Amino acid sequence: MSAKTDLSKFNNSWYKPGGNVFTRMIWYFVNATIINSYMPFSSIKIFWLRMFGAKIGNGVVIKPKVNIKYPWRLKIGSNTWIGENVWIDNLDDVEIGNNVCISQGAMLLCGNHDYKKSSFDLITGKIILEDGAWVGAKAVVCPGTTMKTHSVLTVGSVASGTLESYSVYSGNKAVKVKERSLIN
Amino acid sequence: MSAKTDLSKFNNSWYKPGGNVFTRMIWYFVNATIINSYMPFSSIKIFWLRMFGAKIGNGVVIKPKVNIKYPWRLKIGSNTWIGENVWIDNLDDVEIGNNVCISQGAMLLCGNHDYKKSSFDLITGKIILEDGAWVGAKAVVCPGTTMKTHSVLTVGSVASGTLESYSVYSGNKAVKVKERSLIN
Amino acid sequence: MSAKTDLSKFNNSWYKPGGNVFTRMIWYFVNATIINSYMPFSSIKIFWLRMFGAKIGNGVVIKPKVNIKYPWRLKIGSNTWIGENVWIDNLDDVEIGNNVCISQGAMLLCGNHDYKKSSFDLITGKIILEDGAWVGAKAVVCPGTTMKTHSVLTVGSVASGTLESYSVYSGNKAVKVKERSLIN
Repeated sequence: MSAKTDLSKFNNSWYKPGGNVFTRMIWYFVNATIINSYMPFSSIKIFWLRMFGAKIGNGVVIKPKVNIKYPWRLKIGSNTWIGENVWIDNLDDVEIGNNVCISQGAMLLCGNHDYKKSSFDLITGKIILEDGAWVGAKAVVCPGTTMKTHSVLTVGSVASGTLESYSVYSGNKAVKVKERSLIN
Repeated sequence: MSAKTDLSKFNNSWYKPGGNVFTRMIWYFVNATIINSYMPFSSIKIFWLRMFGAKIGNGVVIKPKVNIKYPWRLKIGSNTWIGENVWIDNLDDVEIGNNVCISQGAMLLCGNHDYKKSSFDLITGKIILEDGAWVGAKAVVCPGTTMKTHSVLTVGSVASGTLESYSVYSGNKAVKVKERSLIN
Repeated sequence: MSAKTDLSKFNNSWYKPGGNVFTRMIWYFVNATIINSYMPFSSIKIFWLRMFGAKIGNGVVIKPKVNIKYPWRLKIGSNTWIGENVWIDNLDDVEIGNNVCISQGAMLLCGNHDYKKSSFDLITGKIILEDGAWVGAKAVVCPGTTMKTHSVLTVGSVASGTLESYSVYSGNKAVKVKERSLIN
């Protein structure tokens, strides 16, 4: 006889999102009205993200309708682009390097559940996108993934684990399909 | 010489969405302004869903920005979670059991077309998610699918047909990749 | 030693989106408030699209929450349907024929980058959907793709290149899985 999931037993009281209740409430409102809006100006969005603890370099572009869970868990280098409608669901830390491109509609997903436990425990995993990485449109990066420098995840693909540097990954689950040779 | 699609011949007058024109108009507005909004309180959303005929158990969580077509075609058990930005496009009945998790960005799709007919007839298919099933983030459940008890559909996967109980499915179209062993 | 992406060198000054700065600003606002809204009436949306240069035939249905980048780069035949939440990101020309169905949540993506150049140059590609083609829900059509007459792309699939007429494609990257035989 197999065990059964019982979500009434779910307990994530150990989980520390960061910030305090009040900060999270205000951020929820700022995200809904400014970051996740059609407002086009990156500078205003970067201002608010930094006010709530995000570390963001220079020359960063943040397109409209982006959705960011917790700015205090977000680090972005310089000259990086966050595309339209990108969803950074960072229940855990997300570290994005320099010259990274996250294309429109992509998702960085930091939350998972232990589906082997009836209490369906929350598991979070950090995401690291190293310098020069490219997440294609509508692609999903799963919890715990590291995209090594200049790795590429193609349109609509789903990545987990570690993606090798200067390599192109495709599919669900994404596998390496070729090298990325880059010239000046 | 092949036949050609002619959407001017499309005729779905046989289709009964349920409710009456007035009910559907009001629901359209309630869905747009309350269910599909950033408003965080499950209880208010459940109140409105029940007012429009949804059967919903206890301890159900409905996250923000959910999109539900016809509440009178929706049945949800107890202790079930509907994640942020989930789209329940229930042109047909959707029955969701107890302790089910539908993760963020997932879609339950009940509408299809007969692409072998030039009139492109509407076909709808009921979706059943049995107790303990888990639909991963950004996954799509196609018309007519049954996810048997405690089956799992991984992130970004696309399911159709019947998913066996206590089994993990992945890919597009999703295939069984392993058993789900569950302990208390 | 490999070269590195440097997005500060990115230069798309050669790219001509069409319209002028003022037209694009107004369209941005019209798209955000009318096309990408819950407003249900196709006729009003078609009126605005035509005002901004779109060529649109008769009997076209445009569902709510559609997102269209540049209407002056859009051509739609007659009796064609654009589903709810469809994203036409037409940095390049998009030509959609008669009796085409683009289902809910699908994306037409015209922008790409040259990932072999450190300057990550913008590359755009025209998309052609010939008469009777069907793009399934949540599917993505990549830059430069032609879907020949009556080709079908299944739910959640990702297409590139040329899809043969009267053929069904599935997967990421989508491959031909069967013929589409069509009767009157």
